[in-house]
Amino acid sequence: MMAMQWAKKIAQIQPFYVMEMLAKAKALEAQGRHIVRMEAGEPDFTTPAPVLAAARLALDEDRTRYTPSLGIPELRAAIAQWYQTRYGVAVSPQRVVVTPGTSGAFQLIFGLLLDAGDRVALSDPGYPCYPNMVRFVNGEPVAIPVSPQSHYQLSAELLVEQLAPQHARGLKAAIVTSPSNPTGTLIPDAQMQTLLSAVEGQGGYVISDELYHGITYGCKARTALEFSENAIVINGFSKYFGMTGWRLGWMIVPPSAVRGIEMLSQNLFISAPTIAQYAALQAFDCAGAMDEQVARYDLNRRYLLTALPKLGFGIGVEPKGAFYIYADATQVLSKTGLANGEALCMAALEQAGCAFTPGLDFGRYRSHEHVRFCYAAELAQLKIAMERLAAWLG
Amino acid sequence: MMAMQWAKKIAQIQPFYVMEMLAKAKALEAQGRHIVRMEAGEPDFTTPAPVLAAARLALDEDRTRYTPSLGIPELRAAIAQWYQTRYGVAVSPQRVVVTPGTSGAFQLIFGLLLDAGDRVALSDPGYPCYPNMVRFVNGEPVAIPVSPQSHYQLSAELLVEQLAPQHARGLKAAIVTSPSNPTGTLIPDAQMQTLLSAVEGQGGYVISDELYHGITYGCKARTALEFSENAIVINGFSKYFGMTGWRLGWMIVPPSAVRGIEMLSQNLFISAPTIAQYAALQAFDCAGAMDEQVARYDLNRRYLLTALPKLGFGIGVEPKGAFYIYADATQVLSKTGLANGEALCMAALEQAGCAFTPGLDFGRYRSHEHVRFCYAAELAQLKIAMERLAAWLG
Repeated sequence: MMAMQWAKKIAQIQPFYVMEMLAKAKALEAQGRHIVRMEAGEPDFTTPAPVLAAARLALDEDRTRYTPSLGIPELRAAIAQWYQTRYGVAVSPQRVVVTPGTSGAFQLIFGLLLDAGDRVALSDPGYPCYPNMVRFVNGEPVAIPVSPQSHYQLSAELLVEQLAPQHARGLKAAIVTSPSNPTGTLIPDAQMQTLLSAVEGQGGYVISDELYHGITYGCKARTALEFSENAIVINGFSKYFGMTGWRLGWMIVPPSAVRGIEMLSQNLFISAPTIAQYAALQAFDCAGAMDEQVARYDLNRRYLLTALPKLGFGIGVEPKGAFYIYADATQVLSKTGLANGEALCMAALEQAGCAFTPGLDFGRYRSHEHVRFCYAAELAQLKIAMERLAAWLG
Repeated sequence: MMAMQWAKKIAQIQPFYVMEMLAKAKALEAQGRHIVRMEAGEPDFTTPAPVLAAARLALDEDRTRYTPSLGIPELRAAIAQWYQTRYGVAVSPQRVVVTPGTSGAFQLIFGLLLDAGDRVALSDPGYPCYPNMVRFVNGEPVAIPVSPQSHYQLSAELLVEQLAPQHARGLKAAIVTSPSNPTGTLIPDAQMQTLLSAVEGQGGYVISDELYHGITYGCKARTALEFSENAIVINGFSKYFGMTGWRLGWMIVPPSAVRGIEMLSQNLFISAPTIAQYAALQAFDCAGAMDEQVARYDLNRRYLLTALPKLGFGIGVEPKGAFYIYADATQVLSKTGLANGEALCMAALEQAGCAFTPGLDFGRYRSHEHVRFCYAAELAQLKIAMERLAAWLG
C-alpha cells in the first residue's frame, strides 16, 4: 500500500490517555480483576424512563426521516422554554439550533466564526477537544494557564495580553466551561461579566459551554445569556439528563448567526439523529429525577473532598459542579517516586485496581502533576478505591 | 446586538434551493393544494421492521452509552462481512470506521488528508456538500465540468491538466460518486481503473462515495476496493436501507489511516449514535426486502425515461442507479420563455403542483439549464405529475 500523507494538523492532535486507561481497565477486568472505574466522564445512571418511552413511540410511528437541519420545531421550542423556566431568560425558538451532540455545536460555531489563523482563547487545563476542533478548521487555539486563583477559569485579567490593542490579531472567541471539565469549578458571576465585556468589547465572542449545568452543589450555574445577549451558549442532553450515546446537543446563537449556522449544518450533518430529537422532548420534565442523581453525586463529592487530601492529593479550590475532582498529585508523586501523573495513573490501575485520568489529557500547564477523578459512580465503590489507594500509598 | 463577523468561507456556501422548494411545497400543501413531491432525495419506504425491532431491543437494554469512536465491534465486523458477501472483497474489520452519516465520514477523511489550500477534484454537477465540506477545513475544491460523454463522472482524461507534473499543487484527492447524485449514472469500470491509477500515481487518493450502491438497475455497482486497496470507500445506511434520520454511515480506510481517523472521530463526534449502531446490525439481512424497493423504483425510472423526453426534457445518458434523473431543460425553457431551471422549478410548483429541483443546487456547469427529478415516490403520483406538466406545457 501507499504511504499515507496526513494533514499537518493531525500531528498536533494528542490521543486521549483516558482511552488508554479505559482500555487497560477493561483488559484487567477481563482477566478477572476488580477495578474501580473513575476514569471516564459518563453519568452512571440509565436514560430516564419517559425519554425511553418517547423513543419507543418514535419507532412505533417510524419517525426516522431527516429533520430540518436546525432541529424539529417542537424541540427547539422546548429548549427555548427551558431557558425561561430554568434561568428566567427569554429565548426565541428561532435562535435555538439542535445539534448532533455538543461536539456538533462546537463544529458549527467554529466553522461560522473562524478563518484560517483566527485565534480562540481557552483554559489550560480544559476540555481537550476544543483546541483540536479549532485546529480542524485551521484556527489557532490560545491556551491560557489557569489556576485555583481564578477558579481554574478564564478572566479578563488573564486575557489582557491577548486582547491588548497592540495585539494584531485579537481574539475571535474565548471559551468558558462552567462547571468545568476537568476541574468541576464554576466561574464567579463578576468574572464572567468582566470577561464578556472584555472579549465582546474588542469584537470577539464568548462561547459558553454549559453542558454540566444542573450538576451543581449548593449553588446554581447561571447561563451566559443572563449576562449578554451576544453570548453563544452550548448545552446538551448528555450529562445532566444522562443521554450520552443519543448524540444530541443544542446551541443558542444571536439571530444574525442562524442562517449561516443552518447552511453549515445542512452541509456538515444534514440533521441531528431523529429518534433522539423526539425522545428528548420528554427530557425536561425529568429534571426532578435528575436532581436526585445530582444529590447522590454530591455525597460522592463530599466523601472524596475529605478522603483525597488524607491521601496527599491537593484540591486547590472546591469543585462545586460536574462530577470531577482535579487533584494536585505533587505530594503523592514525591512519596511514591513516580515521575508524573501518567505513571501514577498506570501504577494505581495495575497495583491498586483504581482507574483515574492523568492531567496530561487536559493541557500542558502543570498537567504532569495533576490527575482527574470522576465520581459519577457508586459511593461504595469510591470507598473501596480510597481504601485501596490508602493501603497502596502506605 | 453586535454585528457578527462570519468566516469568509461562509460567503462561499450556497443555500440549497431544494430546501426552498421543499418549504414552498409544504406551504402550498398547507393551503390544501396537492403537490407531487419529486424534490427531496429520500427513500419513500419505512425503516425495515427487523431494524426497528433491534432498536427497540437496544432501548429495552438501555444500550445508549457512548461507544468506541470507531464504532461497536459487532457492527464493524458486520460491515466488513458485507464486502465479502456483496463484492467478494476481503476487508478487515479493523479498517472499518462507523460514522455519524456519510457526512461524518467525509469530515473525517477531509480532516485527515487536507491542509489549508490542498485541492480536491469533484464533478460538476455533483453533490453540493462536498465542496462546502472541503472549504470547511480550508481545502480548495476543484470543480470539473462533466457531461454525458463521461457518464457525468470524473475521468483521468478530464483530470489531465490538474494532475500534470507542472501543476505545482497536484491533487490531494478526487471524489467519485457512483451511482451519482444528481445524475444517477455509474462510472464505467475502465474509467474508474484509469482514474485510480492517475490519481494514486501522483500521490493522491480517490474517495469513492458508494451511498447509492444497491440501488442500481440491470447492473451492479462495483466498489472501488475491487480496483485498488488504497481507495477510500464511504457508504451508509441512509439510501439503500432507507435509514436517513438514523444518521449512520461508514468508511473503509487503509490500515495506516485508522489511528488518525480514530483521533479525529474522538474529537469531532465522540461516537456515532448508539441506538442506530445496534439497530443497523440487522440491516444487512434485509437486502432482499430492499431489492423489492429497488424493483419498484425501476418501474418509476422506466416510466420517467419515456415520459420526460415527450415533455421536451433531454436525458443525455441513461441513469442506471440512485433515484434521480438529471434532465436538460433547454427545450422546455425555450418553449415556456422561462429564464432558467430555478424559474422553471418555481413555476412548475406554483402552476402545475409539481416539485423538483433546479440544477443550480449541484454546480455551475450548465446548471441553469438542468433540473433534477427524484423518483423515490409512488408511480401513480409520478403519472399525475407528468400529466400535469403535459397540460401545463401545452
